[in-house]
Amino acid sequence: MFYHDKRTQYKVCVEKPNPAFARMLQQAIGGIEGEMRVCLQYLFQAWNSRGPAKYRDMLLDTGTEEISHIEMLATAVALNLEGAPLSVQESAIKQDGVVGAVLGGMNPRSFLSAGLGAMAFDAEGVPFSGAYVVGSGNIVADMYTNVAAESTGRALATRLWEITDDPGMKDMLGFMIARDTMHQQQWLAVIEELGGYNALPIPNSFPQSKENQEFSYSFISPNIDGTGTPSGRWTEGPSLDGKGEFRVLKAEPYGDEPKLGPPVPEGHAQKEQMTMTDTIIGNIKDTLS
Amino acid sequence: MFYHDKRTQYKVCVEKPNPAFARMLQQAIGGIEGEMRVCLQYLFQAWNSRGPAKYRDMLLDTGTEEISHIEMLATAVALNLEGAPLSVQESAIKQDGVVGAVLGGMNPRSFLSAGLGAMAFDAEGVPFSGAYVVGSGNIVADMYTNVAAESTGRALATRLWEITDDPGMKDMLGFMIARDTMHQQQWLAVIEELGGYNALPIPNSFPQSKENQEFSYSFISPNIDGTGTPSGRWTEGPSLDGKGEFRVLKAEPYGDEPKLGPPVPEGHAQKEQMTMTDTIIGNIKDTLS
Amino acid sequence: MFYHDKRTQYKVCVEKPNPAFARMLQQAIGGIEGEMRVCLQYLFQAWNSRGPAKYRDMLLDTGTEEISHIEMLATAVALNLEGAPLSVQESAIKQDGVVGAVLGGMNPRSFLSAGLGAMAFDAEGVPFSGAYVVGSGNIVADMYTNVAAESTGRALATRLWEITDDPGMKDMLGFMIARDTMHQQQWLAVIEELGGYNALPIPNSFPQSKENQEFSYSFISPNIDGTGTPSGRWTEGPSLDGKGEFRVLKAEPYGDEPKLGPPVPEGHAQKEQMTMTDTIIGNIKDTLS
Amino acid sequence: MFYHDKRTQYKVCVEKPNPAFARMLQQAIGGIEGEMRVCLQYLFQAWNSRGPAKYRDMLLDTGTEEISHIEMLATAVALNLEGAPLSVQESAIKQDGVVGAVLGGMNPRSFLSAGLGAMAFDAEGVPFSGAYVVGSGNIVADMYTNVAAESTGRALATRLWEITDDPGMKDMLGFMIARDTMHQQQWLAVIEELGGYNALPIPNSFPQSKENQEFSYSFISPNIDGTGTPSGRWTEGPSLDGKGEFRVLKAEPYGDEPKLGPPVPEGHAQKEQMTMTDTIIGNIKDTLS
Amino acid sequence: MFYHDKRTQYKVCVEKPNPAFARMLQQAIGGIEGEMRVCLQYLFQAWNSRGPAKYRDMLLDTGTEEISHIEMLATAVALNLEGAPLSVQESAIKQDGVVGAVLGGMNPRSFLSAGLGAMAFDAEGVPFSGAYVVGSGNIVADMYTNVAAESTGRALATRLWEITDDPGMKDMLGFMIARDTMHQQQWLAVIEELGGYNALPIPNSFPQSKENQEFSYSFISPNIDGTGTPSGRWTEGPSLDGKGEFRVLKAEPYGDEPKLGPPVPEGHAQKEQMTMTDTIIGNIKDTLS
Amino acid sequence: MFYHDKRTQYKVCVEKPNPAFARMLQQAIGGIEGEMRVCLQYLFQAWNSRGPAKYRDMLLDTGTEEISHIEMLATAVALNLEGAPLSVQESAIKQDGVVGAVLGGMNPRSFLSAGLGAMAFDAEGVPFSGAYVVGSGNIVADMYTNVAAESTGRALATRLWEITDDPGMKDMLGFMIARDTMHQQQWLAVIEELGGYNALPIPNSFPQSKENQEFSYSFISPNIDGTGTPSGRWTEGPSLDGKGEFRVLKAEPYGDEPKLGPPVPEGHAQKEQMTMTDTIIGNIKDTLS
Repeated sequence: MFYHDKRTQYKVCVEKPNPAFARMLQQAIGGIEGEMRVCLQYLFQAWNSRGPAKYRDMLLDTGTEEISHIEMLATAVALNLEGAPLSVQESAIKQDGVVGAVLGGMNPRSFLSAGLGAMAFDAEGVPFSGAYVVGSGNIVADMYTNVAAESTGRALATRLWEITDDPGMKDMLGFMIARDTMHQQQWLAVIEELGGYNALPIPNSFPQSKENQEFSYSFISPNIDGTGTPSGRWTEGPSLDGKGEFRVLKAEPYGDEPKLGPPVPEGHAQKEQMTMTDTIIGNIKDTLS
Repeated sequence: MFYHDKRTQYKVCVEKPNPAFARMLQQAIGGIEGEMRVCLQYLFQAWNSRGPAKYRDMLLDTGTEEISHIEMLATAVALNLEGAPLSVQESAIKQDGVVGAVLGGMNPRSFLSAGLGAMAFDAEGVPFSGAYVVGSGNIVADMYTNVAAESTGRALATRLWEITDDPGMKDMLGFMIARDTMHQQQWLAVIEELGGYNALPIPNSFPQSKENQEFSYSFISPNIDGTGTPSGRWTEGPSLDGKGEFRVLKAEPYGDEPKLGPPVPEGHAQKEQMTMTDTIIGNIKDTLS
Repeated sequence: MFYHDKRTQYKVCVEKPNPAFARMLQQAIGGIEGEMRVCLQYLFQAWNSRGPAKYRDMLLDTGTEEISHIEMLATAVALNLEGAPLSVQESAIKQDGVVGAVLGGMNPRSFLSAGLGAMAFDAEGVPFSGAYVVGSGNIVADMYTNVAAESTGRALATRLWEITDDPGMKDMLGFMIARDTMHQQQWLAVIEELGGYNALPIPNSFPQSKENQEFSYSFISPNIDGTGTPSGRWTEGPSLDGKGEFRVLKAEPYGDEPKLGPPVPEGHAQKEQMTMTDTIIGNIKDTLS
Repeated sequence: MFYHDKRTQYKVCVEKPNPAFARMLQQAIGGIEGEMRVCLQYLFQAWNSRGPAKYRDMLLDTGTEEISHIEMLATAVALNLEGAPLSVQESAIKQDGVVGAVLGGMNPRSFLSAGLGAMAFDAEGVPFSGAYVVGSGNIVADMYTNVAAESTGRALATRLWEITDDPGMKDMLGFMIARDTMHQQQWLAVIEELGGYNALPIPNSFPQSKENQEFSYSFISPNIDGTGTPSGRWTEGPSLDGKGEFRVLKAEPYGDEPKLGPPVPEGHAQKEQMTMTDTIIGNIKDTLS
Repeated sequence: MFYHDKRTQYKVCVEKPNPAFARMLQQAIGGIEGEMRVCLQYLFQAWNSRGPAKYRDMLLDTGTEEISHIEMLATAVALNLEGAPLSVQESAIKQDGVVGAVLGGMNPRSFLSAGLGAMAFDAEGVPFSGAYVVGSGNIVADMYTNVAAESTGRALATRLWEITDDPGMKDMLGFMIARDTMHQQQWLAVIEELGGYNALPIPNSFPQSKENQEFSYSFISPNIDGTGTPSGRWTEGPSLDGKGEFRVLKAEPYGDEPKLGPPVPEGHAQKEQMTMTDTIIGNIKDTLS
Repeated sequence: MFYHDKRTQYKVCVEKPNPAFARMLQQAIGGIEGEMRVCLQYLFQAWNSRGPAKYRDMLLDTGTEEISHIEMLATAVALNLEGAPLSVQESAIKQDGVVGAVLGGMNPRSFLSAGLGAMAFDAEGVPFSGAYVVGSGNIVADMYTNVAAESTGRALATRLWEITDDPGMKDMLGFMIARDTMHQQQWLAVIEELGGYNALPIPNSFPQSKENQEFSYSFISPNIDGTGTPSGRWTEGPSLDGKGEFRVLKAEPYGDEPKLGPPVPEGHAQKEQMTMTDTIIGNIKDTLS
């Protein structure tokens, strides 16, 4: 179960409110690479965790930390919205010598729907989706998913750091970027404990004898422009898991042209799809001639 | 640009059509871990690729291969739907000695909207979303995202393999599982080329001096139940990137309780939010007494 | 900021796992009347709270409690999924003398995507949406929104209580139903503190002199079948806020037929929309004759 | 403005309620080919109508009729849900000699969220989306969109007709199928008035001299399997609009390989994407050797 | 069934078109607190209405009125879009001495997809969702949901009133704000008829003896920062429904740490999740040492 | 299966990058009338194709061509984003004598999430949805759906052509507009082959004797304002399919007022909905008096 303290995990100071920056921060709240996603992802992974309990514990810890990150960002959004121009006329007039966009460049709903507050959406105003929350039940698949989330999340945070010059915001983001550094490490460290490259292929509990091993370590190239395939770590030499040898194959069809059955009567295709009789074909030919 | 051959990349045979399995296969078409997602993800990453051209080429190749995988799965869905019971009465009657569900357990829209065909949605009938398609512009972040997709994708494929006993479907899935094996290798091989753990933290072009390094390698535990923090690769010892030393911190607030300004008049909060005068507070006290 | 304890807020016991009931419980996790919604709704309302601090504190408290409710439900889902039939053949075979549906009636993704775990979606498999999270910045509007959420939420919980006969699940739901009872009270108590019916109309900070007061307390009936308008508390007598008198008006148009301008050239309507010349009208008449 | 009569446009009788059929009917309410879509589509097209007023009037008429269709379907759903089994145990037991699915095969939310009523979603439980509502401002484009909606809508209605044997439902659907027949005619009649094939290409107000006319009437085939292009009305002979001659072109690239600029520093790609120096390339080569 | 009159319910005049205001008005059309939502919500509640017929009638009346409100807003959007700058160059140039944003600050799709017309989306361009439409089958729950919709809806309308200075738009909004005043009254009057606070807890048909009454009137505080719980109407004294006494409880866990079973083989977790043998644990320890 | 060439189908040149135009181009990628939709629509229609193989082949050809169109547009977006202002301060400053909007008017996520690249969303930042992809299994319904897509798609392309003055972009769009011209022809040519108006009503395999033929060719007008029904091709004369005669009917109800049963106990409506006894009615009357 969960508890709270009214203070925030780290300082949230905004020296010069900027509604356009509030919009950008929303990406870190409700975006696919944002904090709502990682928070719920780690918590659901913990709640569904089967296997060694230590991973459940760690996921609960970091999932809980991420709630505190959403809180910091939501507070930062609310503070950045203060003082925004609130007229579709006024909004375009110069402020501090700089010309603003409509409603100071904020998401319109931050005012219209929230009265100058943070919302559960991204920088485009698209609502957060539970579909972003991935927990596969396979711990290594989940750890790679978490690394991916923290990598795109840290990229986002560094971009936010670049487009603001507010010292308070840079300080807060500097804290969050550091936490993303750690979280990248943390999920990779679990994979390391579980074998690193030896954990491949994921899931490792499926017997590789059941897959079509002729294609397990082949790079297939469907390029037909004649420029060839650039070589890389994946085109020759031993595979990373040590279980095969990389090679390059030109793409080619191993299957046939598919043949589906005729439409069923209850599906009410056009009659011509069901029985293409000679008469009908004749009619079509007449049309063409 | 793109070309096609009418044959499929691999054989698609269904010995005994099963509408319930058609529903399950839809997850591999339109789900977040499915083929539409990886196809579009690799293609968009290729089209947005900045930096060494060899990675663009590889992404184009594999993105193109994935179109062929969607085709195989869509064909498999259509074939599994053939012969489905098409009545809300009939559907529950025994078939081959086994009792079926409504419309044979298929997604209702596979018949109602598609006339027994594949659709661009997942096993729950939820439409594919472009939000699943991640391409961050940072190649290592993207590669980890791709590994995550292929790991959850292979887990899905092995689960599909388990719940069917159709030899044709097992054969097709055995091919796809092998391709997922390779694709996991492939994206990790790019990371390997670009430094492996030395590529951390991602993005590596942001100077770590700008992040709050006190927190870059600390595991923060907000657990208050007194059971302590289990040790792991991430709690002590050198960090994976060799740039720090792991440690454990008990969570504590470094910030203050946030104080937002009063509501702006144009936002039309309740009057009591704007000016909580003594009279109003007195009224509230009276209510309580 | 937030903390956790590894124990749950209340006991979560499942005597006889039931995958179909797991599906139903998902509505209480990811549905519009579920716990993810109220959790995030109360937390965002707290984080955006402007005005008396006591309401912010209360919202933070109850928002935090709701995280614990999601945890209980997610655990209940995972436990109900254990032992589910995992074959599209086997699934329809009798279990305990009762015939099951495909995969025991579970959401297919609970197995395919989560390996028998809870997910951030509702009973139909539709992902949770951040659009459900309402925080308007007007405290009375928000409190009514919260009462609505707890009312539909408690209705859902009582329906779940009815469709299961598992004693552990009934016990857990009995706890949650009680919490919904309290939360209904709690949000209405805030409205009571802030004036009850005197808080109307919401927002009370907009001067009613600016609205068209001729229509402020009139029930408008666009019914034209001649059966009249049933009388109710809203058709006659003083209004609830004591500021007007209810009456009934037959619906009638006070506006004119709208006339939009012609299409702009850049919008490329059909030519006939831009200039309906006599020739064109003549052609149309010819077509008709 | 709008009025109503409490009676329905046509009789809605259900002789034997069937919760599974209620689920199927939901597709005709909230699906992309359903009545909510056409209702809102015709109304929005009317409200945005620019050009001859007669089309606005017709769209308003038929848009208003479609509200009555939603009402009939919603009523049919509620009636079909009556008597459904309301237990996850009971639901699987034989009823009338036939085995039912969980909750009688209904959408779970029809009970859990609506207490046995219709909802604004499709047969999969996916909510109706405003994205389905198309009104382009070009009347011929809109008319073709409407024909498409009525064609897929009539196909749906005939499939619903097939899977039920309830006489009341067949009667109601027989009325709706007839209305779809008329609505297909109606939108095509507008196109006929506006020139039929002479209205092509749509929009006809864009001067064709501005398009690349070399490709305006060419069928491009990117097929490379050597089986050739089947001939059809579109491969040879005059174009339908009489403005060109059909021909077949083998697909070939007229553009070059795209070259994007290097990543900008603020975007924080990996360093290796920004400057692939000899040293880095050397390191990569070492990795490969 | 439904009828229409070509005139609007109230005057829709725009003196000075403003594309940025058109964008804002879209929130009142397609937003969660907008008119499409209340229109469909009241109509679906009416169509699903079980119990006294007078409430069904009232819901039909007001649902029908709301269609007329969508019509007025759509017309207002179309009129505000007229004269918008239609070039990505021109759009940023001064108009009337004020600098505009891209395409005059409109939603891009209002031009690109609709040719300067209203669409079924909100101010962010996010499509209306059927998920917003709530009808629970419990009349008091529904009435509170309706009050919530009209409260957030009136807040929105007053904010729109503030950000425009167009007299025609202020007049139209003044009418709509008055209607929201009435509709708030109306839904509360139904609750009053049905018992007011005596209708609590909702649903009142669930026997309270089945809920865990120890927690039915307790405010639970998971705050651990030592600042205590502020007192309010909800912390002491009789409950609003007169059935209990409020009190405050410190949050504590009544449940245990959850223990899920091991992963099933068919789910293909990693092997290490299934059997954490001594060897594997030893390997992990080696990794750590 | 599919292949690719690294070159694009047509030249993609951007003389003066414009981030606001990049935003507009996104509509042609991820919008409902965009290239992702037609690409997937034609491919799914091909993969599900039942009936004469020539239509399957044609759909595969054109679906494959559309992948090349997405590629061109994605490349155009990436090129237009180069040189965008990347600061929420700088962004509003004059560039080339013209004032720009925040981040140059681009979608914020094009930078924040993609590092200046194309994404799978529309001009509003709303993700592409698989729900847009229609394939009904009825070939004429599908062809009309395709014509609709190419008509709204060509309208979009001409609008994009109008709002840019970049010669490279105009050239690329001139190519795409020409392709839309052809594709409109192409789908209509299939309908022509299959009978033209004789293919009506769609589906033609449903016996018209089963529909309520009294209403098959009647225009129903629910207009009650006394202005009459404008005459058109659809109000009198023979129907387009030659199977009936058009006529006008005033709307009237053929059904009764619906009567649903009482709520079931398990659904927990309010008690007053279940048994409206005299006592309760008396209480309500008391409330009213």
